Amino acid sequence: MSLLNDLQWRYATKKMNGKKVPQDKLDYILEAARLAPSSSGLQPYKIIVISDEALLTKIKDLAWNQNQIIDCSHLLVFAAWDKYTEERITEVFNYTMDERDLPHSTMDDYKNNLWGMYSQLSEEWHAHHASKQSYISFSMAIAAAAEQKVDATPMEGFLPEKLDELLKLKGSGYKSTLLLPLGYRENENDWLVNMKKIRTPKEEFITEMTIDDAANLETEPMDKTISDPKK
Amino acid sequence: MSLLNDLQWRYATKKMNGKKVPQDKLDYILEAARLAPSSSGLQPYKIIVISDEALLTKIKDLAWNQNQIIDCSHLLVFAAWDKYTEERITEVFNYTMDERDLPHSTMDDYKNNLWGMYSQLSEEWHAHHASKQSYISFSMAIAAAAEQKVDATPMEGFLPEKLDELLKLKGSGYKSTLLLPLGYRENENDWLVNMKKIRTPKEEFITEMTIDDAANLETEPMDKTISDPKK
Repeated sequence: MSLLNDLQWRYATKKMNGKKVPQDKLDYILEAARLAPSSSGLQPYKIIVISDEALLTKIKDLAWNQNQIIDCSHLLVFAAWDKYTEERITEVFNYTMDERDLPHSTMDDYKNNLWGMYSQLSEEWHAHHASKQSYISFSMAIAAAAEQKVDATPMEGFLPEKLDELLKLKGSGYKSTLLLPLGYRENENDWLVNMKKIRTPKEEFITEMTIDDAANLETEPMDKTISDPKK
Repeated sequence: MSLLNDLQWRYATKKMNGKKVPQDKLDYILEAARLAPSSSGLQPYKIIVISDEALLTKIKDLAWNQNQIIDCSHLLVFAAWDKYTEERITEVFNYTMDERDLPHSTMDDYKNNLWGMYSQLSEEWHAHHASKQSYISFSMAIAAAAEQKVDATPMEGFLPEKLDELLKLKGSGYKSTLLLPLGYRENENDWLVNMKKIRTPKEEFITEMTIDDAANLETEPMDKTISDPKK
């Protein structure tokens, strides 16, 4: 199978049948989420895995009664950093340098540039930015689930502050960003399963541009690059 | 190959060799981006494809001199809606219903719920939310590129307002959110290619939770669901 076939196969499953996803498939999906790229490699997010019925029932109450939350096999809760701090960034970069047998100072210029930018931005911007990184991980989990023929329902519809309270995320430095119930579709009770998949037509979705289509804007090279931590 | 192998193979390529990506591979990557899921199926984003050297040079100037922008084969610029409007949402839902041979009114309750929520949120929140959706599409493009053994460098580091001006996005209802140069790695000049891939260790990345780990929070079912447009 190819990714395109997997993306055609998948859909936001509306009714799941309660069947369990085998541990090896769950591990595969979580590993894809873990391998996802993120801005500066910070991976400012983690995943909470829940299959406890009593807890899922409470989460369903906080998530617009979406029945997939109790009919799934496992619910993945993505949670992102509430903000960036110099300490958090330093910890990740130091770990990275240790794993690569490089001195911590290798990343100093890059870190100072990065923190120089982030420290000027609001905590709200930080939370949105960290949340965006979690969307990349979430997407890789969705693709991996489809490859494993495991159904999944991407969900943003829940009360994040209440969920943070329930999952004791408040004060932990994380905020819940996304839910991904994993399980198996119940064909006969799923109104969406046989509906045609609709996407923006190619000709609207994709535009090609050349210099002739662009504005006549004078630009000049910046005096440094952010792409190379060694420079 | 599997997605996990593809994710192990890929990395944020730092030096590309200028070789062209064949059209069929480019089309494959764009189609994966197009098939990505999005909140309520709105796909509040589009992709601009650029291979014109003069335009790429200007974009590089606005993107911290990152050389992949001129050494790539094609640059994908992701651009998301600057805000949600009732008209935009209605247009997508009407198109969806037309394609499914259903009356437009099928989505009325769902649309009213959705717009009821969105209309109370700030334009800044809208822009962040639409941007987040573009991250899902971006991620599918990254996964598709890796599957096709096409290198890619996920990039957030650019001056979005300047780029919006250059690409005439200002006033068009879109804002640039992400860049994805596609091409091929130049092994001998890429400092990252042979570095060990570092990710948060599994035991930190993944937590399992049961009701015993959760807060003792009283919840009760909401009086409606947002998951079914027919209800």
